[in-house]
Amino acid sequence: MSKEKLVVIGGDAAGMSAASQARRQRSDLDIIAFEKTPHTSYAACGIPYYVGDMIKTSDQLVARAPEVFREKQNIDARVLHEVVEIDLEGRRVKAVNLSENAESWESFDKLLIATGASPIVPDVPGKDAEGVFTISSLESGLRCREALDRLNPRNAVVIGGGYIGIEMAEALLMRGCDVTMIEMAPQVMPTLDQDMAGIVAQKLADDGVELLLEEPLTGFDVDSNGRVLAVTTSNRTIPTDFTVLAIGIRPESNLAAAAGVPLGDRNAIRINERMETGIEGVWSAGDCAESKHLVSGKPFWVALGTVANKHGRVAGINIAGGNAVFPGVVGTAITKFNELEIARTGLQQREIDKLGIDSISAKIHSKTRAHYYPGAELINVKLFAEKGNGRLLGAQIIGGPGSGKRIDTAAAALHAGMTIEDLINLDLSYAPPFSPVWDPLQIAARVLLSKL
Amino acid sequence: MSKEKLVVIGGDAAGMSAASQARRQRSDLDIIAFEKTPHTSYAACGIPYYVGDMIKTSDQLVARAPEVFREKQNIDARVLHEVVEIDLEGRRVKAVNLSENAESWESFDKLLIATGASPIVPDVPGKDAEGVFTISSLESGLRCREALDRLNPRNAVVIGGGYIGIEMAEALLMRGCDVTMIEMAPQVMPTLDQDMAGIVAQKLADDGVELLLEEPLTGFDVDSNGRVLAVTTSNRTIPTDFTVLAIGIRPESNLAAAAGVPLGDRNAIRINERMETGIEGVWSAGDCAESKHLVSGKPFWVALGTVANKHGRVAGINIAGGNAVFPGVVGTAITKFNELEIARTGLQQREIDKLGIDSISAKIHSKTRAHYYPGAELINVKLFAEKGNGRLLGAQIIGGPGSGKRIDTAAAALHAGMTIEDLINLDLSYAPPFSPVWDPLQIAARVLLSKL
Repeated sequence: MSKEKLVVIGGDAAGMSAASQARRQRSDLDIIAFEKTPHTSYAACGIPYYVGDMIKTSDQLVARAPEVFREKQNIDARVLHEVVEIDLEGRRVKAVNLSENAESWESFDKLLIATGASPIVPDVPGKDAEGVFTISSLESGLRCREALDRLNPRNAVVIGGGYIGIEMAEALLMRGCDVTMIEMAPQVMPTLDQDMAGIVAQKLADDGVELLLEEPLTGFDVDSNGRVLAVTTSNRTIPTDFTVLAIGIRPESNLAAAAGVPLGDRNAIRINERMETGIEGVWSAGDCAESKHLVSGKPFWVALGTVANKHGRVAGINIAGGNAVFPGVVGTAITKFNELEIARTGLQQREIDKLGIDSISAKIHSKTRAHYYPGAELINVKLFAEKGNGRLLGAQIIGGPGSGKRIDTAAAALHAGMTIEDLINLDLSYAPPFSPVWDPLQIAARVLLSKL
Repeated sequence: MSKEKLVVIGGDAAGMSAASQARRQRSDLDIIAFEKTPHTSYAACGIPYYVGDMIKTSDQLVARAPEVFREKQNIDARVLHEVVEIDLEGRRVKAVNLSENAESWESFDKLLIATGASPIVPDVPGKDAEGVFTISSLESGLRCREALDRLNPRNAVVIGGGYIGIEMAEALLMRGCDVTMIEMAPQVMPTLDQDMAGIVAQKLADDGVELLLEEPLTGFDVDSNGRVLAVTTSNRTIPTDFTVLAIGIRPESNLAAAAGVPLGDRNAIRINERMETGIEGVWSAGDCAESKHLVSGKPFWVALGTVANKHGRVAGINIAGGNAVFPGVVGTAITKFNELEIARTGLQQREIDKLGIDSISAKIHSKTRAHYYPGAELINVKLFAEKGNGRLLGAQIIGGPGSGKRIDTAAAALHAGMTIEDLINLDLSYAPPFSPVWDPLQIAARVLLSKL
């Protein structure tokens, strides 16, 4: 009798975490992982910093190469293999060897779908022009950096003011570009409230980014060689020789959906807390799969490397016959623009209102250290609580170095369902080089409590 | 009928927080605060940095001066007034005006004892010599700095390797002294496990502190003018012209005890979670009062500015007729030595063993940022969990810039009674400039889980 076989579709964070975890639990399992790009287990979140030349070589972004999986873990990681069909009935997948353009079927006993997410490309004229880049896979990052190195562009346009847009704006400034950012919405960073996002917008402007809000993209002007000449919006034409399209991402769930795997929030693959799709022997994990939002209690799609790794760990344990659960997320995210740190967790005002929760918020500014200690930086904190029971609903933090990671305390408080009073009473660390005597989170909590 | 009167003994963090909070709730209360030093509401934790000249003037350490309390809050803050007796029966206290050496009685309806803590001075020959300093009140800090400025000493000895010892060693290095640290115990930083404390000891040595462990102080050699010449230990004589005695502190509870107020852990004043002493109308708060340790469930004495402020807030609300509770602490503390950040929370191995809890620990090292991101610093994390239920018991973190404040996540997890599995599943913030994709706390938690 042949060995039981696990097939993994997608060789990045979630897929390879799961494969590794399954291997650790069961040495007898056959494990095959298909990855359509040439790379496994790379740090997608590091790409903007590689493009910006803070990270010198792309090797540094690869946590584990395919040959390492083969040699050290007996995981058959097949890169440049794209799975194009899942046959649930026949318990097999059809993979295309992209190097040889050859199709073959591979049977499975257990299947993990970890197909990730992909950038949204709007259907506008010129979208495929040379000089228009999206950032997703390591391959896309390599292409973007190679072009930057070669073209040394002067005028760059970033389309979209979310996490990737902000990070790419920083990278392009570091590469000496004049950067224009256009954003369709009236604010950057849609996961922040507009007042907090205003702090980010101000910093973008202060550091030389020309920011155009409420500026919908209409297309690209392209020269006869197919190279981008300008970005066009409803309001103007912006000459450019280098453009990053970062208007959002979507879960790569088409393959799963075509096979009949049920989808959930924003078309992400629906899973339970054991990462099961509901179809016997089929799991999903990572950027293509949904999570549960522990504050709203509702399904929630988030595509982040850290969640993908957690998904992968739980999927791998369960696939190997163990028992692990991933209870969910609280919507934590962090980034920076130059020295401004930007972090959020839980629900923002818009989400709270949509859920019909009666809430109250407070916003304060304080310092990252005792005010008298050298290097104390401005920190802005906004907190939300539910009226009546005082439950913490969310937090947003924006400030200088030392601000961002403080969001983790709020994230832990959200996991625990703490109230604002609980937050005030937390025994947080204090010494003058680290914090005011009341931590900024607790200063915000005290103001919020006085309003509740 | 005269107004109700609150008397506060002690005008620093706890006392004045309580007085301010009581005033905010009740404008009709008479509030008198007695403080034996010339200063109110100062940042005692900032004193080593003032001595080290990172903070230039002592004014910066005073959060609110007595005249501000009088003018802005109608709180009669009487500095240089020492309360020498509490008459519980007669509902009055006896205060000495230290400027005029005049005694008087002051009646009270409500009393808050916030007498703080004081340095332990061992009964050894020469302990009162000129050039032997302790650090506690702002006054003591002023004396220490004035002497440093005047004498410009070459050889300094720090006696004691705890928080204040470490901070004063840094300060004295910054002032250009050759620093010797002697410590009776076989390790520095007794609130850390010995293996983790070893990292601190190594850093002390690397940065030029001569560290002598298991070196009990026997006394001081003193010249005919009463100036210190040398520190003597069981093993040697260490010539010095400047010595800081930092072997520990004790709660200032003698006044309360003499009046019959019950004491608890380590002779701190026993209080409940409303900060009541059990004697009608008498509260206590701050460094003289005990707390409950939420991990051990036992009374626990800790003297920290941040706890004192929380105590004061709760005492003030309750004194004013409100209803607030201070559930307790989890033993969080933080400091740094040069760029090494040192933090701990919960129980250490010694405490766990003493409680008879069957536990397991894991220790890892990781980086503060993604390993490929510039400025990623080494971070060491040690975690403890209870066998069987997997409950988190404690955490110790030592590492480069960006390490220390991560202890707050563990502190929040301890407040919530989380297990190691809960910690692994926390939705902590991740981006390459802030953390590896698995937060170092979660890397440690994963290793610990594999051992459980």
